[in-house]
Amino acid sequence: MNFADEKAKLSFASDYMKGAHPAIMERLVETNMMETGGYGLDPFSDSARDKIRMACEAPRARVEFLVGGTQTNATVIDALLRSHQGVVAAHTGHIATHEAGAIEAGGHKVLTVPHKNGKISPDTVRIFLEDYYNDDNCEHMVMPGMVYISHPTEYGTLYTREELQALHEICRQYRIPLYLDGARLAYALACPANDISLADLAVYCDVFYIGGTKCGALFGEAVVVPDPDLIPGFFSIIKQHGALLAKGRILGIQFDTLFTDDLYERIGAPAIEAADKIRTNLQKKDYRLCFDSPTNQLFCIMDNEKLQKLGEKVEYSFWEKYDDANTIIRLATDWSITPEKTDALIEIL
Amino acid sequence: MNFADEKAKLSFASDYMKGAHPAIMERLVETNMMETGGYGLDPFSDSARDKIRMACEAPRARVEFLVGGTQTNATVIDALLRSHQGVVAAHTGHIATHEAGAIEAGGHKVLTVPHKNGKISPDTVRIFLEDYYNDDNCEHMVMPGMVYISHPTEYGTLYTREELQALHEICRQYRIPLYLDGARLAYALACPANDISLADLAVYCDVFYIGGTKCGALFGEAVVVPDPDLIPGFFSIIKQHGALLAKGRILGIQFDTLFTDDLYERIGAPAIEAADKIRTNLQKKDYRLCFDSPTNQLFCIMDNEKLQKLGEKVEYSFWEKYDDANTIIRLATDWSITPEKTDALIEIL
Amino acid sequence: MNFADEKAKLSFASDYMKGAHPAIMERLVETNMMETGGYGLDPFSDSARDKIRMACEAPRARVEFLVGGTQTNATVIDALLRSHQGVVAAHTGHIATHEAGAIEAGGHKVLTVPHKNGKISPDTVRIFLEDYYNDDNCEHMVMPGMVYISHPTEYGTLYTREELQALHEICRQYRIPLYLDGARLAYALACPANDISLADLAVYCDVFYIGGTKCGALFGEAVVVPDPDLIPGFFSIIKQHGALLAKGRILGIQFDTLFTDDLYERIGAPAIEAADKIRTNLQKKDYRLCFDSPTNQLFCIMDNEKLQKLGEKVEYSFWEKYDDANTIIRLATDWSITPEKTDALIEIL
Amino acid sequence: MNFADEKAKLSFASDYMKGAHPAIMERLVETNMMETGGYGLDPFSDSARDKIRMACEAPRARVEFLVGGTQTNATVIDALLRSHQGVVAAHTGHIATHEAGAIEAGGHKVLTVPHKNGKISPDTVRIFLEDYYNDDNCEHMVMPGMVYISHPTEYGTLYTREELQALHEICRQYRIPLYLDGARLAYALACPANDISLADLAVYCDVFYIGGTKCGALFGEAVVVPDPDLIPGFFSIIKQHGALLAKGRILGIQFDTLFTDDLYERIGAPAIEAADKIRTNLQKKDYRLCFDSPTNQLFCIMDNEKLQKLGEKVEYSFWEKYDDANTIIRLATDWSITPEKTDALIEIL
Repeated sequence: MNFADEKAKLSFASDYMKGAHPAIMERLVETNMMETGGYGLDPFSDSARDKIRMACEAPRARVEFLVGGTQTNATVIDALLRSHQGVVAAHTGHIATHEAGAIEAGGHKVLTVPHKNGKISPDTVRIFLEDYYNDDNCEHMVMPGMVYISHPTEYGTLYTREELQALHEICRQYRIPLYLDGARLAYALACPANDISLADLAVYCDVFYIGGTKCGALFGEAVVVPDPDLIPGFFSIIKQHGALLAKGRILGIQFDTLFTDDLYERIGAPAIEAADKIRTNLQKKDYRLCFDSPTNQLFCIMDNEKLQKLGEKVEYSFWEKYDDANTIIRLATDWSITPEKTDALIEIL
Repeated sequence: MNFADEKAKLSFASDYMKGAHPAIMERLVETNMMETGGYGLDPFSDSARDKIRMACEAPRARVEFLVGGTQTNATVIDALLRSHQGVVAAHTGHIATHEAGAIEAGGHKVLTVPHKNGKISPDTVRIFLEDYYNDDNCEHMVMPGMVYISHPTEYGTLYTREELQALHEICRQYRIPLYLDGARLAYALACPANDISLADLAVYCDVFYIGGTKCGALFGEAVVVPDPDLIPGFFSIIKQHGALLAKGRILGIQFDTLFTDDLYERIGAPAIEAADKIRTNLQKKDYRLCFDSPTNQLFCIMDNEKLQKLGEKVEYSFWEKYDDANTIIRLATDWSITPEKTDALIEIL
Repeated sequence: MNFADEKAKLSFASDYMKGAHPAIMERLVETNMMETGGYGLDPFSDSARDKIRMACEAPRARVEFLVGGTQTNATVIDALLRSHQGVVAAHTGHIATHEAGAIEAGGHKVLTVPHKNGKISPDTVRIFLEDYYNDDNCEHMVMPGMVYISHPTEYGTLYTREELQALHEICRQYRIPLYLDGARLAYALACPANDISLADLAVYCDVFYIGGTKCGALFGEAVVVPDPDLIPGFFSIIKQHGALLAKGRILGIQFDTLFTDDLYERIGAPAIEAADKIRTNLQKKDYRLCFDSPTNQLFCIMDNEKLQKLGEKVEYSFWEKYDDANTIIRLATDWSITPEKTDALIEIL
Repeated sequence: MNFADEKAKLSFASDYMKGAHPAIMERLVETNMMETGGYGLDPFSDSARDKIRMACEAPRARVEFLVGGTQTNATVIDALLRSHQGVVAAHTGHIATHEAGAIEAGGHKVLTVPHKNGKISPDTVRIFLEDYYNDDNCEHMVMPGMVYISHPTEYGTLYTREELQALHEICRQYRIPLYLDGARLAYALACPANDISLADLAVYCDVFYIGGTKCGALFGEAVVVPDPDLIPGFFSIIKQHGALLAKGRILGIQFDTLFTDDLYERIGAPAIEAADKIRTNLQKKDYRLCFDSPTNQLFCIMDNEKLQKLGEKVEYSFWEKYDDANTIIRLATDWSITPEKTDALIEIL
């Protein structure tokens, strides 16, 4: 294979372009020929679960390892909802847009609400729930059975702890669970602007997942359910969704590594530093950022001519058309970025 | 972690107790820091697809890599059936028993038919289809929309090429696809008793999958669709099932390795040799085998007292109660087995 | 239209060949131009609910009116099960055979067990549940989440109160609901051999339905849930299943009529008397009955030559081939049968 | 029962508050004791099918009778879509709002697009489809597999023939079916502003349904599929959805009556005349209509104080809050309205 062309370009297309953090690869090789039980019933998975419980200060939490984000969302949402309920999410929520209808395939409507830069405000949720229950015809409509948020959001923005707490309170009041998609959680944890800890998540969310795929693992997402009795039959539900890895220890080993010596909380730091530097330079050079996103994704409005040139040297994500002359693009940094790569991009910009 | 206890036992519990073939681990480490596109759109996956097409002598085939067996079955079956159709399978078929209702979760009934040692005879399928169409009330019943078989079966037995061809003919006649689950296909290919080649599968099956998880990969199953136009929208269907790996190259690299220098067709050989040797010794020592299974799974009727002793030194799978004094157990060998391990088991027996 | 041909034959094909009991038609005509609320929120439905509660001696019961049997089964089963659970039923259960996969369309497996003349014995259920929980791999299998029985069964047989109580006890022990399909319940209630009253159903079943379609209504089934808190969101679940009739009062009026002056408990009597008379005569004339079914369905083994002649004068249901020379047929009587019609059949036989 | 209170009010709440057109009731009574086959295989249903084919000038059309609107939409949409496809509909479409998630329960996303007074413009659909196919990530999104419109819309508005033709052309171009929900079709056909005939529907729609429930039947919707080969297995799909009425002739008799002497095309006339008169008077008295809706539903902005008084004498539908001082209400007329009732309302207004 000749990768010459690809290598010539700097990739800022996404945060899943490489393999895994070297520490993970080492551990996988080292343990490769050991024999263990399947389906997550192995000592590596158990050890990873313990470390995650400790990191989340949630000693009773149930922790399950799944393979990917769409799969995790579909599995958790099916597990939390009754057949006639739907899930409240932002119009921009991953489950509402880029999961090919996985939630609907499970029989549930995604009840979309307006967002601001990818975030749903507590008031938006409150009004949505009030409106539902105030509607005389509410029983003819899909009952909101849970709330889905992502942190960081699909737009790289962050909830504050205060906002998370407010969402939690509303959900409590209406007795519906709050579920947080942490596909890129490591980039929040490494971000100075973030004030939500793993322990906060375990307090304010009924279920959340700690993303591996985009945060240095080959693949894998760790679902945390602080109240272990919340989801009866969860193992079978995972199996039914085709989300139970036979060699579950591959997930256990990865998360055990990520939660050894706080690697997970540190792994996003290079991405955040690089994004900060790029952001500062973009602003310096009068590029327009769409909005303030403090994590590893930058959304920038680019003149189409400039963009074409950029595209010759840099891989980026097309986001959407801004107007006839301009385009919104996304630049994403990841855990593996080097100062050299960052500088090279800045040089090109 | 202390594995002392576990290590003391010889594991014949299943064929997914270890990591991956060393050649796969090497390749994963070697390519780890390269950057490639996601979702299977990478040169490793493309190369693996080409090699599989060549091995199957199916140059136009569509090849997609999924993560696990239950997931693959659910995805392929949903892709092949219309909403009112069901899938014909043996009572013992994996989809009918140990997939936690994944097929039904997709809305489809598993239409079970009698088996013989895990195999469905062509006559059984013919009669089932005839009976359906001859029934005045057939439109009130679930329409058989495809046939599912596994090779080797869940009982380690093998179809003959003649049987496969006959099943193919019946399916053609009723215009329904034939789908073959090859979770343990490498153990068939390495077995002298097997007369079905990869190329035969591409001729006689409408869809089949080449199992990785149980055949030396960390995980992964390669779905082969000889007629690439058979399943419109297959990529979206895979995504919708949460079966699209973001870092799809991890699958590509594994299958590229397995299909380099015919590794896949050789990898099962040690397991078959070991199983043969164990089988011969069991018979010599008057153990009763349940039926003749020529691949890597042996089903043996054991006196309960003997079994307890065996259990102190050997991990096996409980299959089912035979009678009050005896139990059916399964012993499985795998690609990584050594002559020493085989001999140690024989010694114990 | 010319019905001459059809009229020439005596119809014993099924119990839904006519319209409704005249009292129902009168009431529908009488109330036709009144204006009431929709969706079952009308005084007729309320009155019918009260009368059913009284007849069942279940003053707190929730009563909902649905349109047909398959719809009712699918709606109730979806309402009672969690996404990973299945429903235990006889191989011959209506949900397992003639509902075109409606239960699977809702995502649930029908877990079939052996029957005797259409009935499941309490021991069969007990063993099935024990086996599930004793299986090490049970979490890989579909969890039995409820039990479905029908009374009378699809074979016209009846459970005894003792059997019903035993099934109830087992379900209680495993904390799963017992659901009874009463599509032909009026024919049980009118049968001297039956010792299960409506009040017994309310004690021993978690949910049951009182069949209208086959018991003298134009259509309609009344679902009774003795514990009104058992199914949160039931109204929405009914709506979601397309089972909420806009002019719900049409159902209310029919059941209000059926439960006025105990009509429902009397309506099946002519059918039972006719079936008894036919049965006695069949036995007298050395016809072979397949088994003893005391209600309005008779299953008879007929010589094929005789059958052809019978078919010229009588409409019957083909049930299944018995052997090359004989066929099993079903003869069904209904609420509207006259002694003349019965005698005419006996004459022909 | 005492209906005194209810009777004291004039009901303009909806168009399903009464029973059926007297001609239907007569016919049901007249045919009540005849014996016919079940499941729509009866001469009444056949006759109704023929009359509908003739009225639609679609001699080859498949015509099936279902019970209610939500059920019909869910059944048809499941029948037309592949598992990974969704249905394009207005935000205000009945399937997007008031069907309790019936479409999602079948596994399909409702892909909502902006509307104008309940209508989707052809351009809106064109842009939506173009955007989907132009998106690099389209395979990660739900594929638009059909278009749903209603005529009259949920807001009482009407498509023009030109608009319908344009929608048809776009659907043809993208090879997806166009489906029209005619729950209130009789009110369009009776409306001078309407220029779409039944024959036009058969030309421009791939599937449409002729509403009975809101147009003078007790219940029932007639699904018309001009190309009879479009939906293989439709009978089973209807059964699977619990939408197959056992005594199907009850539907056949109703539609046979509605399509005798063009009753269906005339039945809405009194409702349209009444609505016109009310509309004129509302405008005369300076009530604000929300928008121009020429059929049997009027949407009016009412001062809250006035509304309270109105509510003492008239039943109306609350639609939504307009602002703190005003409310949008809906007034609906129906096929049974008398000039006296209309005048009484005008008097009150």
